[in-house]
Amino acid sequence: MSSLAPLSELFAQLPSGVVIDNPDRTVRYMSDWARDPSARPPLAVVRVESTEHVSTTLAWAHRHRVGVVPRGAGTGLSGGATADAGVVVVSLERMAAVDIDTQAHVAKAQAGALNIEVKRAAEEVGLWYPPDPSSYEICTIGGNVATNAGGLCCVKYGVTRDFVLGMQVVLSDGTAVDLGGTRLKDAAGYSLINLFVGSEGTLGIVTEVTLRLLPQPAPSSTLVASFPTTVAATQAVLDITGVCRPSVLELMDHTTIDAVESMTSMGLDRSAGALLLARSDGPDPASAAEIAAVEEICRRWGATEIYSTDDLEEGEAFTQVRRLALPAIERLGSILLEDVGVPVPALPDLVEGIEEIARANNVTIAVIAHAGDGNTHPVVVYDPQQPAQLAAAETAFAAVMDLALQLKGTITGEHGVGRLKRDWLPQQLGAAGLALQHTIKRAFDPHNLLNPGAVLLPENV
Amino acid sequence: MSSLAPLSELFAQLPSGVVIDNPDRTVRYMSDWARDPSARPPLAVVRVESTEHVSTTLAWAHRHRVGVVPRGAGTGLSGGATADAGVVVVSLERMAAVDIDTQAHVAKAQAGALNIEVKRAAEEVGLWYPPDPSSYEICTIGGNVATNAGGLCCVKYGVTRDFVLGMQVVLSDGTAVDLGGTRLKDAAGYSLINLFVGSEGTLGIVTEVTLRLLPQPAPSSTLVASFPTTVAATQAVLDITGVCRPSVLELMDHTTIDAVESMTSMGLDRSAGALLLARSDGPDPASAAEIAAVEEICRRWGATEIYSTDDLEEGEAFTQVRRLALPAIERLGSILLEDVGVPVPALPDLVEGIEEIARANNVTIAVIAHAGDGNTHPVVVYDPQQPAQLAAAETAFAAVMDLALQLKGTITGEHGVGRLKRDWLPQQLGAAGLALQHTIKRAFDPHNLLNPGAVLLPENV
Repeated sequence: MSSLAPLSELFAQLPSGVVIDNPDRTVRYMSDWARDPSARPPLAVVRVESTEHVSTTLAWAHRHRVGVVPRGAGTGLSGGATADAGVVVVSLERMAAVDIDTQAHVAKAQAGALNIEVKRAAEEVGLWYPPDPSSYEICTIGGNVATNAGGLCCVKYGVTRDFVLGMQVVLSDGTAVDLGGTRLKDAAGYSLINLFVGSEGTLGIVTEVTLRLLPQPAPSSTLVASFPTTVAATQAVLDITGVCRPSVLELMDHTTIDAVESMTSMGLDRSAGALLLARSDGPDPASAAEIAAVEEICRRWGATEIYSTDDLEEGEAFTQVRRLALPAIERLGSILLEDVGVPVPALPDLVEGIEEIARANNVTIAVIAHAGDGNTHPVVVYDPQQPAQLAAAETAFAAVMDLALQLKGTITGEHGVGRLKRDWLPQQLGAAGLALQHTIKRAFDPHNLLNPGAVLLPENV
Repeated sequence: MSSLAPLSELFAQLPSGVVIDNPDRTVRYMSDWARDPSARPPLAVVRVESTEHVSTTLAWAHRHRVGVVPRGAGTGLSGGATADAGVVVVSLERMAAVDIDTQAHVAKAQAGALNIEVKRAAEEVGLWYPPDPSSYEICTIGGNVATNAGGLCCVKYGVTRDFVLGMQVVLSDGTAVDLGGTRLKDAAGYSLINLFVGSEGTLGIVTEVTLRLLPQPAPSSTLVASFPTTVAATQAVLDITGVCRPSVLELMDHTTIDAVESMTSMGLDRSAGALLLARSDGPDPASAAEIAAVEEICRRWGATEIYSTDDLEEGEAFTQVRRLALPAIERLGSILLEDVGVPVPALPDLVEGIEEIARANNVTIAVIAHAGDGNTHPVVVYDPQQPAQLAAAETAFAAVMDLALQLKGTITGEHGVGRLKRDWLPQQLGAAGLALQHTIKRAFDPHNLLNPGAVLLPENV
């Protein structure tokens, strides 16, 4: 990377207004929600309008060895869209077209389209795009693909990866490649699509994707159960996943319930140790049977209050409670948001361990979880005015990752490694696994130009 | 590859009986069901008993630049397990352990375990391993992973890829790597698991996998509908997939119906142009509603006879009819088995085009299809005694792949490229896509030792 890179050449190759280098404007593209303190204003921001623009930019960057940081809506939580001095940010915000193929039941979406726009376009023709990260109203499909984003319905319907049938991707030298298509099954050659999904812009820049759509699911039944402890709730989760397939299976701990109730005054039981939210979709009698099975298991694990409903609006209201959890916790102080996942049977040990970590470091950790697939979001809360608290929060944050790894889990279930979790990746993968990651990176990006510093620490290439 | 490779060194490094080099015995490991005429007896067969044995073999092969052909049960249909003079075959047949983790709801299976053994072990504890290639009673999990095998239930439950949570894989230099684990979600680093799934033993040898299990599905309702033409049946398929999610949606054309009836005398309607088999699982009222929706669509597309049943045994009998299709067709002559897939809306054009190809080349082509996901198995039937017929069959076989590619399909939906379809891969992927495949191959196997000649033509590395 060189700050002497001939930016004028790039200006000349792209239409007016596409490249901006005014620091007052580029500073807005400097970081994502992880607010990495190492972020610096980039050399320039390229607000691409087509795959060709991306190709032009990457070919230029390749010639001059300039780093490139791709960016969707900047809602990433791991610092995957963090700029540095001398790099150019490729912003996909202007590539936001969504086109539904009602015959093939797929959506073609440009990377900058919002998740909700794909959902809406599908819904208009009676179809459904399931992946629903909490930020679905404001995050882009490109970002979802980059991090292999999940959400509430993944426990039954899968993550972003499971819906990507095709993509257009621009490689580090500017070559554009089309992969896959609208066919549902394909065993021809290595699955490069699956390699690019979740690669956080470090192997290529995905500019357009073809997404599988499903028929809309039948209306859901919803159950909410209060448990005396978080551990008891996780034990119920384990039993539930052994016998049925709820479409949503979410957990909120006591701290989270308290925070949501303080914000909303919805009448949640502040005395509850934890709350489980389960939904079941399917024709009415089927989902009712499933909810009944869930209810029985919850009782067995000591649930005190259980409420279930077939009313859709009421069900949505409960789901909304879950979606409000993070904003509610954010009112308690500054936060460090975790994303660790463990095998479902390790959930009780994980939540117990997190309670100990909170005590030992004298910080608050609220736990929200996509419990059905073992993916948890422990949120470390601290007072930003007190430097000692920040240090304690960082210690706790690291301790939670260490704990998850001890329990054969992952440092990230759906947010990605970005820059925030990069230092823990070697511990999770082991030497041989990490070496393979570098093998891939070297093969696709030998000059380390694509999102340099994300996912992997640079090594000599 | 050198026939002068010091095999004695390998004999010395492995227990007695693991390596065999008697041509009378090694010849049995020479080819798979594709019976590639270029197959030659290998230098030796290593019947590995552990991942360590695989490591030892690959490290030896790496030192001496000997090609290695991995092999499961040899039921592959694309020539992916074809030996050549001078290579060693690594047979996984002795690594067949299956262990169910009833807490985490996963199966740990060694690569040589049969698919049916995983299914049975899961069933014993009330769980379910869905992928069900037609050969599930005799094919190995390792082979399923190598080809990303599909089957009848994939239309709703996904292919092998969707169930692989972890694996142990040995790289070309003999290094063993553990990837993934029993956690359900993981966004940490590039998804190498997804790269190895479907790589047909050309990037590494998978020795053990951790497979996700699901709760057993509720009993199925089953529907069988006769259509005047294959095209009409495919049009019904398109409409069905737009509104519901049958767990099986299979098609048999007239030739297939005729062949099955000749073999079984089950009372199938020989006058039917095509037959659709649909199943729906879920609690009774739910699946009944789904089957009713399917029935209505079938009527709309001119189905003459429609029969549906909630009786499980009867439903299984109908499914058995579908599973007997290939053996029945094989009684008509020698066959070339296709595996092309197209986007579901292109199915009518595909089946029409196949009829034309059959006429033009004066051969019989029977069509069986996993219609719900657009994956078809046109079977070209010819008389092996007549050289002209073989040539015509080969021409037709190629024409079907060309047609599928014209319709934006794939040359293989679930059998893999192997050696049989390798020459068509460049046409499907295009120059840039093919170059990326070679990038991957070079990065993982720079000396082209792993299953040389499968999937990709060797290039200068």
